[in-house]
Amino acid sequence: MNETTTASPSRRTLLGWGGAGLALGAAAAGGTAAALRLGDGSQPAASAGDAVPFHGAHQAGIATPVQDRLHFAAFDVTTTDRAALVALLKEWTAAAAAMTAGREVGDGESSDYADNAELPPDDTGEALGLKPSRLTLTFGVGPGLFEKDGKDRFGLKSRRPQALIDLPAFPGDNLDPARSGGDLCVQACADDPQVAVHAIRNLARIGMGRVAIRWSQLGFGKTSSTTPDAQTPRNMMGFKDGTRNIAGTETDRLDKHVWVSEKDGPDWLAGGSYLVARRIRMHIETWDRASLKDQEDTFGRTKAEGAPQGKQREHDEPNLKAMKDNAHVRLAHPDSNNGVTILRRGYSFTDGTDGLGRLDAGLFFIAYQRDVRDGFVPLQRRLAAKDALNEYIQHVGSAVFAVPPGVRDKDDWWGRALFA
Amino acid sequence: MNETTTASPSRRTLLGWGGAGLALGAAAAGGTAAALRLGDGSQPAASAGDAVPFHGAHQAGIATPVQDRLHFAAFDVTTTDRAALVALLKEWTAAAAAMTAGREVGDGESSDYADNAELPPDDTGEALGLKPSRLTLTFGVGPGLFEKDGKDRFGLKSRRPQALIDLPAFPGDNLDPARSGGDLCVQACADDPQVAVHAIRNLARIGMGRVAIRWSQLGFGKTSSTTPDAQTPRNMMGFKDGTRNIAGTETDRLDKHVWVSEKDGPDWLAGGSYLVARRIRMHIETWDRASLKDQEDTFGRTKAEGAPQGKQREHDEPNLKAMKDNAHVRLAHPDSNNGVTILRRGYSFTDGTDGLGRLDAGLFFIAYQRDVRDGFVPLQRRLAAKDALNEYIQHVGSAVFAVPPGVRDKDDWWGRALFA
Ligand code: HEM
Ligand code: HEM
Repeated sequence: MNETTTASPSRRTLLGWGGAGLALGAAAAGGTAAALRLGDGSQPAASAGDAVPFHGAHQAGIATPVQDRLHFAAFDVTTTDRAALVALLKEWTAAAAAMTAGREVGDGESSDYADNAELPPDDTGEALGLKPSRLTLTFGVGPGLFEKDGKDRFGLKSRRPQALIDLPAFPGDNLDPARSGGDLCVQACADDPQVAVHAIRNLARIGMGRVAIRWSQLGFGKTSSTTPDAQTPRNMMGFKDGTRNIAGTETDRLDKHVWVSEKDGPDWLAGGSYLVARRIRMHIETWDRASLKDQEDTFGRTKAEGAPQGKQREHDEPNLKAMKDNAHVRLAHPDSNNGVTILRRGYSFTDGTDGLGRLDAGLFFIAYQRDVRDGFVPLQRRLAAKDALNEYIQHVGSAVFAVPPGVRDKDDWWGRALFA
Repeated sequence: MNETTTASPSRRTLLGWGGAGLALGAAAAGGTAAALRLGDGSQPAASAGDAVPFHGAHQAGIATPVQDRLHFAAFDVTTTDRAALVALLKEWTAAAAAMTAGREVGDGESSDYADNAELPPDDTGEALGLKPSRLTLTFGVGPGLFEKDGKDRFGLKSRRPQALIDLPAFPGDNLDPARSGGDLCVQACADDPQVAVHAIRNLARIGMGRVAIRWSQLGFGKTSSTTPDAQTPRNMMGFKDGTRNIAGTETDRLDKHVWVSEKDGPDWLAGGSYLVARRIRMHIETWDRASLKDQEDTFGRTKAEGAPQGKQREHDEPNLKAMKDNAHVRLAHPDSNNGVTILRRGYSFTDGTDGLGRLDAGLFFIAYQRDVRDGFVPLQRRLAAKDALNEYIQHVGSAVFAVPPGVRDKDDWWGRALFA
């Protein structure tokens, strides 16, 4: 097939692939505008509205309306060389900007690979022809980047945010180290799972020799909404989840509860946030044997409508006193926690079976907050101690990350201010 | 909340749930027409066109245009009581008819659960409010149902189809028993993964004490198409997959290659098929380091366009001689195999990492054929011996099932003719 590859060198330079029949399309442009993944020549440029801007004051994927699917990855940094790590973060940022805009990795660059079929393609290709699908890539740094086994690995120890604590152990935790922690993380959310999987896989590939995937989690369905007008999704227990959440449009509440302010410090994190991820296994079979009444008492909400107990409609103001003392919603509500409020962005997972004939299914809980110590930690302390839900769940994975502010423009990169 | 539950007994009877604010909706009717999953009172009856008919001469989910997502489960039968197994199959069939029509399990029945909040709800509820999403549930029986450890467990031994062989071992196989085999299977395909996951989970729940899930597999993206006009999906290697497949509308080819005929026997299987499932792990990292040329030579097709090597367009007739001797497409093509043709219906999977920093990702291969001995077996023999792709893949799970014909009407049930 070499005759066809040499027949169209300019296309190969743009798309980095030697195949025949490549279309130039909007995708090859290199701009950040909404663009379709083109390249097979067969698709007209359809509605271009489904790319989420990558650049901005905050990273996308937090206040962004929740997408349908998730692929979350935690990475260990394997290089000991600070310059190599910085180079990786720059490459990652460029790739993330391309992929979120619906372009392929390496588009618009003239790399060695671009016009040489003897080298691997820049992009693995399985998202070619798919739309941007509102892909967001949200990047975070874990405690281990600042300090591991007492060692200041990259000269960053003094820059560790005070709020980036190692999470305390909570009663009932049964954490699997192979599903916990990580020096870096990337949360990929998209309406098409293939787009989210493709993004993580290409970042992992770019990182070869410098980072290794520590664990990853696919979430097949969102359980939270940050768009209160949309239908609230249901979790694997059949309950509407995300009814009371911070909406992506509530700037006041985002500033108050989610974004790190300049006063909070450190400087490099202003406009960022903190992410807590918990893999929470559900004892589905036990839950399925519980009566409807027990299920509703567990949450303090009705199952069909999602109304607070004693009320009629989902969005009615909860009357906490109408719920049992140990009801999940009663315990988690800000009024029971001196106003503590987090932004939830979790996903349901099902990862086959556990070897005992039970589905390994549950909630991959993700929360964003301005300070973990005034967010997840006090909330989870209370829940771990009392929550009626504990009979049906177990926390099996855990991680915490500081999430830098947004990438401002194409000269900026993930973590620039941290390494400055 | 008990006052609200007793306030609307008729709704509770219909929907089996005690919550407030239930809507009757089309969903409660009990007919098999396309219906929306309603029940939270907040959704108008939207486009009802996305239910696939459950009843028919063949089971849906084979010739049906391939849906986006998969949840596949293999079950071990744990009961030794034939009557209990038959009762289960009847219950499963009723639940499958309801779920594929977008209704909840138990709708339209008057069971004990229906009006008693002290009992568990009939349906686990996480698909309430979701559309039917073209859900299909396809049921199969494995060799172990007929005979296990030399024992005729259910008096079915004489009814085992000759073509339902135990698959031979192939060179390169590295099968995990925990991801192989099974006495029964259900393939759930839907455009919404939550609908597919919900269906398997509810069947598992109904089966408690009689069957246990042996293994299950989530597929996040289809890799095959049975609608040649649609865009061909790409697999995790970035190649279009399913270009040459049997279309769901090609009745002649379906009769010739997919459906068991009356002549083939046994009687109870006429109109059915055979399903082979293989969990095929991809060595993604090795693949990603291969040059574009090597990748294209491996398949014998171009990556971007998916054209046969030496040709321009995806759907051009392949010229096998233009491909390397060990190219996957050359080896798998009917012309190299005395006309052997299978219907492929595989899905991509990504199940976290393998503990070595590599994604556990690949292709969950599903093939339907009229006779395994003239379908998967000779094809895989040839591929296992020679395929260039073997450098990048490994078969890690395997199962084979006989798939009975369609459920004809509401008095019929999965496997009726087998147990007759
Ligand atoms: C598998 C585990 C969990 C399940 C199934 C679950 C489910 C739910 C459900 C159904 C609601 C009510 C609807 C809503 O407002 O979203 C809710 C509310 C809430 N949950 Fe959870 N949750 C889980 C774990 C957690 C954890 C670990 C936290 C935090 C540490 C948490 C914090 C909250 C908060 C803050 C609310 C809102 C309370 C209010 O303002 O009314 N949840 N959860
Ligand atoms: C991870 C493993 C596999 C991958 C990535 C893969 C991928 C592909 C691709 C990209 C094509 C070309 C496009 C098309 O016509 O669909 C193809 C064709 C085909 N494959 Fe596979 N395949 C795999 C395993 C298998 C297995 C196990 C079998 C059967 C034993 C098989 C049978 C076929 C057949 C029959 C064709 C069509 C050949 C033709 O008529 O041109 N494949 N495969």
